[in-house]
Amino acid sequence: MDYADKRLLELEELEEQFKELIKNKKLKEAKALIENLNEVDVATLIDKLDPTTGTVVFRMLPKDIAADVFANFDSEQQQAIIRSSTDAEIKGIMDELYFDDKVDMLEEMPSNVVNSLLKYSAPEERNLINQFLKYPENSAGSLMTIEYVSLKKEMTVEESFRKIKREGIDKETIYTLYVTDNYRRLIGILSLRELIVAPAETRINDLMRSEVVYVHTHDDQEDVANLFRKYGFEAIPVVDNEKRIVGIITYDDIIDIIEEETNEDFQIMAAITPSEDEYLESGVFNLAKHRIMWLMVLMISSTITQRIIAGYESYLYSVVGLSTFIPMLMDTGGNSGSQSSTLVIRGLATGDVKPKDWYKVMWKEFRIAVVVGIVLSIISYFKIIYFDKMPNNIALTVSLTLIFAVMTAKVVGGILPIAAHKLKLDPAIMASPLITTIADATSLIVYFVLAQNIIG
Amino acid sequence: MDYADKRLLELEELEEQFKELIKNKKLKEAKALIENLNEVDVATLIDKLDPTTGTVVFRMLPKDIAADVFANFDSEQQQAIIRSSTDAEIKGIMDELYFDDKVDMLEEMPSNVVNSLLKYSAPEERNLINQFLKYPENSAGSLMTIEYVSLKKEMTVEESFRKIKREGIDKETIYTLYVTDNYRRLIGILSLRELIVAPAETRINDLMRSEVVYVHTHDDQEDVANLFRKYGFEAIPVVDNEKRIVGIITYDDIIDIIEEETNEDFQIMAAITPSEDEYLESGVFNLAKHRIMWLMVLMISSTITQRIIAGYESYLYSVVGLSTFIPMLMDTGGNSGSQSSTLVIRGLATGDVKPKDWYKVMWKEFRIAVVVGIVLSIISYFKIIYFDKMPNNIALTVSLTLIFAVMTAKVVGGILPIAAHKLKLDPAIMASPLITTIADATSLIVYFVLAQNIIG
Repeated sequence: MDYADKRLLELEELEEQFKELIKNKKLKEAKALIENLNEVDVATLIDKLDPTTGTVVFRMLPKDIAADVFANFDSEQQQAIIRSSTDAEIKGIMDELYFDDKVDMLEEMPSNVVNSLLKYSAPEERNLINQFLKYPENSAGSLMTIEYVSLKKEMTVEESFRKIKREGIDKETIYTLYVTDNYRRLIGILSLRELIVAPAETRINDLMRSEVVYVHTHDDQEDVANLFRKYGFEAIPVVDNEKRIVGIITYDDIIDIIEEETNEDFQIMAAITPSEDEYLESGVFNLAKHRIMWLMVLMISSTITQRIIAGYESYLYSVVGLSTFIPMLMDTGGNSGSQSSTLVIRGLATGDVKPKDWYKVMWKEFRIAVVVGIVLSIISYFKIIYFDKMPNNIALTVSLTLIFAVMTAKVVGGILPIAAHKLKLDPAIMASPLITTIADATSLIVYFVLAQNIIG
Repeated sequence: MDYADKRLLELEELEEQFKELIKNKKLKEAKALIENLNEVDVATLIDKLDPTTGTVVFRMLPKDIAADVFANFDSEQQQAIIRSSTDAEIKGIMDELYFDDKVDMLEEMPSNVVNSLLKYSAPEERNLINQFLKYPENSAGSLMTIEYVSLKKEMTVEESFRKIKREGIDKETIYTLYVTDNYRRLIGILSLRELIVAPAETRINDLMRSEVVYVHTHDDQEDVANLFRKYGFEAIPVVDNEKRIVGIITYDDIIDIIEEETNEDFQIMAAITPSEDEYLESGVFNLAKHRIMWLMVLMISSTITQRIIAGYESYLYSVVGLSTFIPMLMDTGGNSGSQSSTLVIRGLATGDVKPKDWYKVMWKEFRIAVVVGIVLSIISYFKIIYFDKMPNNIALTVSLTLIFAVMTAKVVGGILPIAAHKLKLDPAIMASPLITTIADATSLIVYFVLAQNIIG
């Protein structure tokens, strides 16, 4: 067992002890147990209690970590705490929260709670929060925080340090510093490391880089994540239409976004209506609800294959063995197609494949399909003749169908995700289940037509 | 179009201009064009030239960015540069590279090049590099870098700053600081931010947190990535068996690992032998090679369904319409199973599902399958009677088969990934294609048995 696993096990043991102490009302011991833990772990432990007990334990936490723990609670626990707190207590928490955590929390709250919470912020901040709550979901604006350190290009290293010391405690990151002009426009960037190793009297102007990679408030979070992946940034500035800096996005939020986007893609590709709930934490009916819609759509769309077979039913029965290859042809077509669609969907998500590459993808998939189709076809021909001991005309029909099935599936599988992207749909819906349904119908028609011509 | 896309377009235009200048041998203009770019972009542009031209352009780059650009090259370009460089030039690059980039580069090189390169390192570093090259692939040890700043608990804030100023320029990160005892054992951690806002005479002992999350050199990179995801770390320390700190892993490497692991899972789940090459950059035969193996295995394993149908062939032909529902039953079974297996595979990868949860998964999937199966079954019953206008006994057979097919597929789909994990296989292989093959066989047998009993 590795250390990472061991750590998780230790946390589980801790959780047992903690619950036991809470059950026996030994609150002081419970507090001592969790006091030195990371705030993420403390929040996880408290989240697992019922909200009322959770509120009691939360109130015992030392002031300096309370806000950090609060930011990591789920929305239910946050609401329970707010309901049972005095005005002064709520104000205390609100003042300590980072701006982006505050916005995140408010996004999950019912609107009456949002309104009552907003009165604890100064009017200026209240306006800003309202503006942030309006950014489209999944946009850079909805991810960013306003807590960054900005410098002026005339400042010296020493002056900059004084500013960082003064403001740094309240900022989300002080490791990337932003240089702005008098109109708050972003003109340069530098890292705290560059500042630290520079002589005290150097001007910021001589240290900063003016070639800055930035994003716009309305950029999609997936594109922002791809920039982080590409450049390995610690933070990226977000600007408005006038290139004024309005916030920054930090790497830790991006790691969350990458996980969220990946989970979503995995679910959509498996014909699940996506949900952000954890599997083990979700109820049976909730999980069933997210799975049933696509299964139903795909089941109904099988009417097509049903009708195709019905049309050839009497012919099918006239040739012994013909029906036995239907599952193999359908599965091979489906698998071939989902190989192609998966690579293209993933490429579109990471930015490695762009919509304008559609003809490259089509041409590539066509050639791959020729290679793969011919190889599979030859293997299946000899397998049918020598292993299954079936007649030559059946072997020929099956193996020729294979080539067509693989080719259609791969070209369609490669192109449909790009088409979806151009139609502003999520490419991930063009994955295995849908491609399989299309591949099934094509394989069957080709199979029957070839059979009639070859076998007669 | 958003800014992130626009930036990529600008880079493409730049690439065209750059290639044009190179073609016309206007090297000085070419150099001016790229000089102010981010090192990742410079490396991408040069990587697209042929290695010899790439080497010429590389040599014109300013010294201070050359090593950073070099670290971002692909292995082919790195080798071309090394082949055509003098001893002094190679030594220059080697000295400037971060330790983990050096190890990454050497991992990709042929062993004779590794040996000739190692002679440019001091004997002490050479031993360390050799040790790092020995860490298992995908382990924390193979990811880490040795360039971190360590402090002693007796030091003051001021002394610490002097150390950081002196050493900081050569370190991968200075934003997380590690406190060690005289045996190099990790006893505490603190952030540069905490140091900056603290009074100059404070002792490190009073600032550091002694509750440190660390990993072991042999921990799997996926587990390390999950710790970053959970805690939002900037860096994590790596320790040996005696809890001596031997290196650190930073968030930017983790973002790469998350992408790599996700790509691998997507490919395996789509029955592709995983490859790290970019889709558009890979050749047709290379792509075909990675797809053909699983298609072949799955095609051959369809012999099972082939035999099942063959066994019931004469019966199948005696009931009009029975064969037309085979594709629908197979697809619904396959889709139901891949929904379950996808969620469990993903849960195992992110650590949300643990192997010991297998009975919870089984019980949950069983209940979901009952709900989903019954709903689909009822819909399909009425569809067959009223829309397809088929007899009641066929509708009954099909809809009862559906319940069984969904139940088997979901329970098998939920359990197999966990079983694979326990057998130290990658759970991702238990995805859609394999589950489909199993679901096919079960659905067919149940279908035929039920049909014989209900229709006769």
